[in-house]
Amino acid sequence: MENFDFCSPTHFVFGKDREREAGSYVKKYGGSRVLVHFGGQSAKKSGLLDRVTASLQQENLEYALLGGVKPNPRSGLVYEGIELCREKKIDFILAVGGGSVIDSAKAIAMGVEYDGDFWDFYSGKAKAAKAVPVGTVLTIAAAGSEGSGDSVITLEEGDYKRGASSDCIRPKFSILNPALTQTLPAYQTACGATDIMAHVFERYFTNTKDVEITDRLCEGILLTMLNEVPKVIANPDDYQARANIMWAGMVAHNNIVGVGREQDWNSHDLEHELSALYDVAHGAGLAVIMPAWMDYVSEHHDSMRMAQMAVRVFGCEMDFENPKATAKKGIQAFRRFLASIGMPVNFAELGAKKEDIPLLVEKHGVGDGKTGGFVALDRQAVTEIYELAAAAEI
Amino acid sequence: MENFDFCSPTHFVFGKDREREAGSYVKKYGGSRVLVHFGGQSAKKSGLLDRVTASLQQENLEYALLGGVKPNPRSGLVYEGIELCREKKIDFILAVGGGSVIDSAKAIAMGVEYDGDFWDFYSGKAKAAKAVPVGTVLTIAAAGSEGSGDSVITLEEGDYKRGASSDCIRPKFSILNPALTQTLPAYQTACGATDIMAHVFERYFTNTKDVEITDRLCEGILLTMLNEVPKVIANPDDYQARANIMWAGMVAHNNIVGVGREQDWNSHDLEHELSALYDVAHGAGLAVIMPAWMDYVSEHHDSMRMAQMAVRVFGCEMDFENPKATAKKGIQAFRRFLASIGMPVNFAELGAKKEDIPLLVEKHGVGDGKTGGFVALDRQAVTEIYELAAAAEI
Repeated sequence: MENFDFCSPTHFVFGKDREREAGSYVKKYGGSRVLVHFGGQSAKKSGLLDRVTASLQQENLEYALLGGVKPNPRSGLVYEGIELCREKKIDFILAVGGGSVIDSAKAIAMGVEYDGDFWDFYSGKAKAAKAVPVGTVLTIAAAGSEGSGDSVITLEEGDYKRGASSDCIRPKFSILNPALTQTLPAYQTACGATDIMAHVFERYFTNTKDVEITDRLCEGILLTMLNEVPKVIANPDDYQARANIMWAGMVAHNNIVGVGREQDWNSHDLEHELSALYDVAHGAGLAVIMPAWMDYVSEHHDSMRMAQMAVRVFGCEMDFENPKATAKKGIQAFRRFLASIGMPVNFAELGAKKEDIPLLVEKHGVGDGKTGGFVALDRQAVTEIYELAAAAEI
Repeated sequence: MENFDFCSPTHFVFGKDREREAGSYVKKYGGSRVLVHFGGQSAKKSGLLDRVTASLQQENLEYALLGGVKPNPRSGLVYEGIELCREKKIDFILAVGGGSVIDSAKAIAMGVEYDGDFWDFYSGKAKAAKAVPVGTVLTIAAAGSEGSGDSVITLEEGDYKRGASSDCIRPKFSILNPALTQTLPAYQTACGATDIMAHVFERYFTNTKDVEITDRLCEGILLTMLNEVPKVIANPDDYQARANIMWAGMVAHNNIVGVGREQDWNSHDLEHELSALYDVAHGAGLAVIMPAWMDYVSEHHDSMRMAQMAVRVFGCEMDFENPKATAKKGIQAFRRFLASIGMPVNFAELGAKKEDIPLLVEKHGVGDGKTGGFVALDRQAVTEIYELAAAAEI
């Protein structure tokens, strides 16, 4: 285990009807003039937005509304939000939605307190030290943004999807009501579940030795997902399964299970180009990319860690004469699980095109260098993984 | 899963040599006049106290020293600490030690900000709303006090050991350097490990249904302990195993694996009377009490949850015709594990006396009522568990 710092100060407010307490938590964490940031019509139609704004009114808090966040949130609305916050002297941003809304809120929060272009934080030019405080009312278990210091935004000029991280954008509070996720279409639920599992796998595959505690915690989350996700696909109203998935989604990404170890975010980076180019759901892109990445890695790394995953998570029997065969069995089990919850298996099912691979590789930006990670990837490797993803079968 | 709130804002500073940063963290979290609270001679002899005070001097922080905390920390020193803090206008308490030192520091921290007797928080008469900020430099993986809002103190008049809880005593920061635990005698290491496992079991045994995510995380911690503790018993200098145990100890008790479920702290309460009466190590007492409690419970509750523990944690084969037999196998496996790391199995090995059982029952305070928990205990049950603990064999 390597030296690390870990601080996850977010106050999690979990359970039925708790969005009605949003106003009191905004007040508790110092807000008086609130930007309520949200996505499309569903928050309005479901009555959620009304319940949240009613709770703000109850606490005599002023607020402004900014809707319109789309999946794979874009820079245009962030610029708009920054202006609105400055104009209205906003001192708290309340994100009501999923990871996209929260990420957009975090981008606005950093941008308001920064003299330059907010994109500097995403291009790597600057690191945010200060942000307007953010709270969340979560509506989908997926991104883990409700407990993380991360945000991903797509720059409209050129469709570049990039991430920024800073402890200053960890939410002050996050309200997690599993019942709010019951109205999600099965496809979106499955996309979210895939994202959660990817967040764990990207911590799990590491070259750091002696990380038993975080390994075991990662495996615990994955086993939970294998047990609980099929329940909500079969019965969207299963509150208890929704609750388990929702807490798993937070634990998967606030980094308590990822501390002290090298991580590998290559799958997320490879996927970002897919969702930026085709505007497909991030989770669906991951369902195609992540097993392809595993296939590639199992051929270019000692197979023992992937065999460990196969045995401990997917219940495969260890083939002691041929650990790589065990690894491959685990990867196929993962692919079959994803297909069973309705996720795409290859480019065709995702709506991506094999002939775009050179463009994807170009936009990925690996150039003549190499990424870091469990297995460092060069241009050839990136190309091969996209090709494996294009051709995958169960 | 039940509704819950969870907030663990402590900044964890983990790894080799990190106690040298203590001063900068005290400063970061607002301290200027520091009480350094510690135990006996070992912190002095090892040079740890010098390194910590040097780091305070480097940041030009004033400090006073208060040593002398004993295992099962006592009220007398708490009163002394409260007076000292008031006299020196202390605004930060830095606990350098294990759970006893940290718990004593937390008691002082609450007491300084309270007009009445600090014991009110432990007798249940009052709930602390405010405390002097506390930081820790942890020297033993055990109590989990470095990440919790809990403190346990023994009142000298009458040897009553009682706990208090409040979010205001969660440490601002905790420095966890696994190397500091390498000098511990094997017996103390094993006592700490037992305490960590007990913290998990007391969350694990619940009547709340549908708690898959927290079940799996609990099992992950327990599996880690089974793998890592024998390594440090065999080789005290195994830094990596120490590191895994240290992080496990924090995760086991900051409640991230215990949220949304009824918990059962009867074993801790039953043990408190043992360590208060005989001044034995808390972990050693738990090693004797916890399996006895499991034996009792397996006879007075549907056995499926204990069978789950036996199968998932101790790798027992499920006896589908007789789940209780599986449960019993798990309990014996736990007892054998504890014995293998040098823990006592029964009253005689612990240094407790069977003839004191009526006194223990009296001090336990169950009276004519019942405790809550997985199985509610009355006077007869409490007596039987002490009797099972007295007579246990492997």
